[in-house]
Amino acid sequence: MLASKPIHLTQQAIEDLAVGCAFLGSGGGGDPHYSLLELSGLIEQQGGDINIKVISTSELADDDLVAPCGWIGAPTVSLEKLPSGKEALAGLAVLEKTVGRKVNAIFPVEIGGSNGLAPLILAAKTGLPVVDCDGMGRAFPESQMVVFNVQGVSASPAVLTDAKGNSFVIDTVDNLTEELVARASTVALGGICHLFEYIQSGKQTKNFAIDGTLSIAVQIGRSIRKAKEQGDDPFTALINVMQSCHLYGFCGILFDGKVMDLQRETKQGFSVGHVTIESFDGKNQMQIEFQNENLIARIDGKVFATVPDIITVMDRETAQTITTEQIKYGQRVKVLGVSSPAVLRTPNALKILGPEAFGMSDEYAAIEQLNGWEEVMHVR
Amino acid sequence: MLASKPIHLTQQAIEDLAVGCAFLGSGGGGDPHYSLLELSGLIEQQGGDINIKVISTSELADDDLVAPCGWIGAPTVSLEKLPSGKEALAGLAVLEKTVGRKVNAIFPVEIGGSNGLAPLILAAKTGLPVVDCDGMGRAFPESQMVVFNVQGVSASPAVLTDAKGNSFVIDTVDNLTEELVARASTVALGGICHLFEYIQSGKQTKNFAIDGTLSIAVQIGRSIRKAKEQGDDPFTALINVMQSCHLYGFCGILFDGKVMDLQRETKQGFSVGHVTIESFDGKNQMQIEFQNENLIARIDGKVFATVPDIITVMDRETAQTITTEQIKYGQRVKVLGVSSPAVLRTPNALKILGPEAFGMSDEYAAIEQLNGWEEVMHVR
Repeated sequence: MLASKPIHLTQQAIEDLAVGCAFLGSGGGGDPHYSLLELSGLIEQQGGDINIKVISTSELADDDLVAPCGWIGAPTVSLEKLPSGKEALAGLAVLEKTVGRKVNAIFPVEIGGSNGLAPLILAAKTGLPVVDCDGMGRAFPESQMVVFNVQGVSASPAVLTDAKGNSFVIDTVDNLTEELVARASTVALGGICHLFEYIQSGKQTKNFAIDGTLSIAVQIGRSIRKAKEQGDDPFTALINVMQSCHLYGFCGILFDGKVMDLQRETKQGFSVGHVTIESFDGKNQMQIEFQNENLIARIDGKVFATVPDIITVMDRETAQTITTEQIKYGQRVKVLGVSSPAVLRTPNALKILGPEAFGMSDEYAAIEQLNGWEEVMHVR
Repeated sequence: MLASKPIHLTQQAIEDLAVGCAFLGSGGGGDPHYSLLELSGLIEQQGGDINIKVISTSELADDDLVAPCGWIGAPTVSLEKLPSGKEALAGLAVLEKTVGRKVNAIFPVEIGGSNGLAPLILAAKTGLPVVDCDGMGRAFPESQMVVFNVQGVSASPAVLTDAKGNSFVIDTVDNLTEELVARASTVALGGICHLFEYIQSGKQTKNFAIDGTLSIAVQIGRSIRKAKEQGDDPFTALINVMQSCHLYGFCGILFDGKVMDLQRETKQGFSVGHVTIESFDGKNQMQIEFQNENLIARIDGKVFATVPDIITVMDRETAQTITTEQIKYGQRVKVLGVSSPAVLRTPNALKILGPEAFGMSDEYAAIEQLNGWEEVMHVR
């Protein structure tokens, strides 16, 4: 089991974190590449190290004001429309004015993809501590798909900001409406915005957030890097880390093959589509459906993994995660699956973020059952 | 010339006002019927008279905080989705909290259609005075098509509220973005919302607002009613009022016939389409294109009126205005045209609200020139 511990944020740690966040994103959350570039630039400005305080949830006071944050929009858009760098700072100012007090700490609303790194950039600019936790334990395409919503925390007031200096304070009577309006506004503003939402007390963070995920992401990245440095198989190293991690527990390779077919469009603010991967012997096909994130993986029609369990497509040589907006015809990939944190698998959680929430007729079944991993892997 | 004078708001005055607002709406602004029902209910509750203070612009102090308001959305939606009655009150509270001071007066952002009456309902509930003016002198489909935008007043902060209790504070770097986001949010929320925007000082209202339009609307309604009571032609009475009114000046019947063809859809938050009216001898056809409001009227292909001049379709027997969402096959109608206030005809104004702003290739030409009215009517 991995402990949650403060992260020393060297350039190396940031790079490991980016690799881990990409893996946990289930193909979504946006490619961490650009967040990594921005963080690396800040590190270079500050002489090779960076002044970001990462704290554990236990260090929060009950009445601290804690602000989850991240980007909303289609990852396909984020590839072409770069941030101004002022979105999060502007949003923080509007948020503090709206609630009438200073924010004490921030954390990623989702650890997956670029959003896992986003709060570190804001922390480097403001000195605010980043809490070692997140709200999803992965990435989800819609903002109401978060443990805080499952627990009845209000998404409002939420603050949306864009690269041009526009800002919006969103106050809705329910959390789904917050997503609908934030998404519609984001589309109207060009497809990508920064969002503060589910502003909460330190007590709520301690009770509800998914704990230690920043640390886990760093360890994922480090294990892959070390394995490659030592000439070991990075997938074995990765699987070992995930299996030894109490929060996740089961991890394995679902499929190995080549991308044969891809359909992807940017629709209503999402990257939506499906990808078909064929085994090298040509005998089997995996099809993955995605909406920003990979949602369901079938081999020859049979389901082997479904949301909220994590489905991540990786380059089979470098073990680099290929996000849904980066998948291309001809890529040679391994598809990995990870059991999601238990808090995402409760009946209440599944209503909000399980297959049904995406309009899929398949009922949720745990990835370790679908793949017979329970017998062969460590039981958490 | 009509003077701007305080309106005594009896049930009769409210009904006259509704008739006048419908006429000035150029087919848009929403049918005033529902606003009239709500106001009539308030009047009945208060024993036949209503406690609304209507003031002239000259009564404002320079540093008063004045809030234009109205509804945003497709009129087709407003036919089916009734307000909760709390939208404007909730928006006012959010607005006052956002700007940190009390609003001193309100007025209709557009005099046309239902929006001409909307602030009276809020005034009846709050005791706030309503200023006898508006921002358009008619109705326009998009919120940036307002004299305050022409004059460089910021639309922000704008406050959007809906029937369920959702609220949004919109702060944009330009006024077109305010429209885009307010419209997108309105669509996400079901198609109709209440909006405060172009919050301004009393000095700005005095300098920029279109003065006296509430009074003029009442006089329009009264002239039509009186003519019908006396057995006179209501169209002649209406045309006489408009011609004697300094703000408008030219008015006439553009066409007389029967609705032969109608295409209308609710698209991106607007009612969009065109209607064809055939003369009773079958020899000529008028086609009107609309986007919430009637935008351009052609007879047998030749333009006879174009936005911002007012084009209003009326029942040829009752002289009741038929808004674009109420037009039906077979209606027997007269189409009236009115020259728009001069402030809407400047080159800067036309860029924002003329034919070009609607993507039309026709250049603006004054309705009195297109119809040869200059020779036969009073010169203003």
